[in-house]
Amino acid sequence: TKRYSITVLPGDGIGPETMSVAKDILKLIGSLEGIEFGFQEMPMGGSALDLTGVPLPDETLSAAKQSDAVLLGAIGGYKWDNNPKHLKPETGLLQLRESLKVFANLRPATILPQLVDSSTLKKEVAEGVDLMVVRELTGGIYFGKPRGIGTNENGEEIGFNTEVYASYEIDRIARVGFETARKRKKKLCSVDKANVLEASMFWRNRVTAIASEYPDVELSHMYVDNAAMQLVRNPKQFDTILTNNIFGDILSDEASMITGSIGMLPSASLGASGPGLFEPIHGSAPDIAGQDKANPLATILSVAMLLKYGLGEENAAKRIENAVLDTLNKGFRTGDIYSAGNKLVGCKEMGEEVLKSV
Amino acid sequence: TKRYSITVLPGDGIGPETMSVAKDILKLIGSLEGIEFGFQEMPMGGSALDLTGVPLPDETLSAAKQSDAVLLGAIGGYKWDNNPKHLKPETGLLQLRESLKVFANLRPATILPQLVDSSTLKKEVAEGVDLMVVRELTGGIYFGKPRGIGTNENGEEIGFNTEVYASYEIDRIARVGFETARKRKKKLCSVDKANVLEASMFWRNRVTAIASEYPDVELSHMYVDNAAMQLVRNPKQFDTILTNNIFGDILSDEASMITGSIGMLPSASLGASGPGLFEPIHGSAPDIAGQDKANPLATILSVAMLLKYGLGEENAAKRIENAVLDTLNKGFRTGDIYSAGNKLVGCKEMGEEVLKSV
Ligand SMILES: CC(C)[C@H](C(=O)O)[C@@H](O)C(=O)O
Ligand SMILES: CC(C)[C@H](C(=O)O)[C@@H](O)C(=O)O
Repeated sequence: TKRYSITVLPGDGIGPETMSVAKDILKLIGSLEGIEFGFQEMPMGGSALDLTGVPLPDETLSAAKQSDAVLLGAIGGYKWDNNPKHLKPETGLLQLRESLKVFANLRPATILPQLVDSSTLKKEVAEGVDLMVVRELTGGIYFGKPRGIGTNENGEEIGFNTEVYASYEIDRIARVGFETARKRKKKLCSVDKANVLEASMFWRNRVTAIASEYPDVELSHMYVDNAAMQLVRNPKQFDTILTNNIFGDILSDEASMITGSIGMLPSASLGASGPGLFEPIHGSAPDIAGQDKANPLATILSVAMLLKYGLGEENAAKRIENAVLDTLNKGFRTGDIYSAGNKLVGCKEMGEEVLKSV
Repeated sequence: TKRYSITVLPGDGIGPETMSVAKDILKLIGSLEGIEFGFQEMPMGGSALDLTGVPLPDETLSAAKQSDAVLLGAIGGYKWDNNPKHLKPETGLLQLRESLKVFANLRPATILPQLVDSSTLKKEVAEGVDLMVVRELTGGIYFGKPRGIGTNENGEEIGFNTEVYASYEIDRIARVGFETARKRKKKLCSVDKANVLEASMFWRNRVTAIASEYPDVELSHMYVDNAAMQLVRNPKQFDTILTNNIFGDILSDEASMITGSIGMLPSASLGASGPGLFEPIHGSAPDIAGQDKANPLATILSVAMLLKYGLGEENAAKRIENAVLDTLNKGFRTGDIYSAGNKLVGCKEMGEEVLKSV
């Protein structure tokens, strides 16, 4: 039997609840597919801060590095919102991404026919949306230096950050973008602000250069402000979107809300080698934490991405995706995706139903 | 009689068409209100590039500076898209904003009951949206230095920009935000990325400090990724949004598309003193230029903002706004806002109908 070690980071808020459900499903899939999963559960985010004083303890990081894949629940909460930067849960997440060198963040935004009513967009606009955001995750303004709060030459206090991309960083994420598009509808839209920013002009130049390696993929460019509009106007025009860290943060959240089911959407963060990081797109939702109200499907689908992109276990991944679809077809819904005529369930019961459908 | 000198910059694409209509309306309003407008029409953007070799000729800038207000049509087009940075139409616009020191960009996004069907959002979500984005316009990553394309210490080619805000820049735009909210529903939401960026932490600190001057305004903070989602999920939650240059670029375009009538939306850019700059939010739409298809209402409503915010002529502004509403009530629609049962008209005819309704 194959063995994989999975670092499990339940994190904060609803993280532990959805993670507990997701682990059960991974175990069942393992037993059915003849795969043994070893789980190492470690503290991360706000709960790690409370426990150890830092958001990403060394033990957590080294466990993550030694494992085959990392599964994260969610991090953050009001409690730590006013912490100084190095003691924010978010800083732990950024350190984890950087240390694992997972530069490619894949964020699907798909509208399932069963859930088209959850979108705030009109049915005819929402129906059939199926796009993938490929976001650069370990560069740009998130990590660029110099950065800080200081004083300028006039003695005025300033806050500053640096948006910076080296050619190799753009080239490798562009290749992920083209490869991803190649497996989809072969349309890649690179989003930047090249009419204003040099970092974007350089981005556009590099992406255009890499395009010659992928003659079968159709490349287009769009300004970020226009992309933010077009996602609302006609999201179906997009297949694969390639963009930098900060624009990807904004556009992938916008795209996920367009599906109306942010509680459904997983993500994968991959490097050139080493374990990938898999997490739902939604946050830790502190207001509903501990009430068995969370939608576990995004974490469950993150497990499917882990199997597919992290371990190459496509069969096992497909089984999970199908079980989720079956469960939705049977009418089970958590509060966030509930509509009249369906069965309202909590986090645990939703998990049990998916287990039954596997 | 009062006299005002207006610098008119028709610009590119549909700019000249919508501007010609808007000027007629301003003239009529002037004669009715006993105001004399002197117009100085100057080249700007791509048409200035073709004519003079630069996107913002010195003569244009000095005319603008000496006038009481500047009215801009639209700039840009495919023709100049691959020009080097200093020869892009957009660079002329950035120079104009910087030279006029118009640091406060007011961008309303309102859904008129007559046009609620034009939104891609469901009626119950779109109905009643009435928000104002207050965007910082002369700072941040648009203007920050260092910037460029160069080489890093490892000899790798890089593209880089600097996001930087000094305290005085944040304080003055924050005050505009609070003042604007005070005249509206007294709710100000400041949007940043303070969980990651020092420039945003500093922004949040300064905005919070300025809040003590406005105890009657309710201040909240939101991360930009969440704001991009919330605009889709429930845009009605927002009254006034305060944000930096790049986030404002993205969010105001998203917000305007949510109204479904980007051809309707004006903007005002104001400084501490000197002439303001007034322009529609939409671009130059080169694909429909010269075909009498453009919607002139955004430019006409920019004239209303010019009268109200630029010249303090509130009566005259109100007359224009009412004339636009009347024209819509009579069922006149350009293609972009057309729906069955209404009368499809071109740019000129729409202008004539508004003239009749003044
Ligand atoms: C929590 C935060 C640091 C993070 C980011 O900005 O990347 C989150 O918004 C995300 O998109 O995963
Ligand atoms: C044309 C461009 C430079 C400009 C900007 O980015 O500010 C435009 O998008 C806008 O929002 O007015």
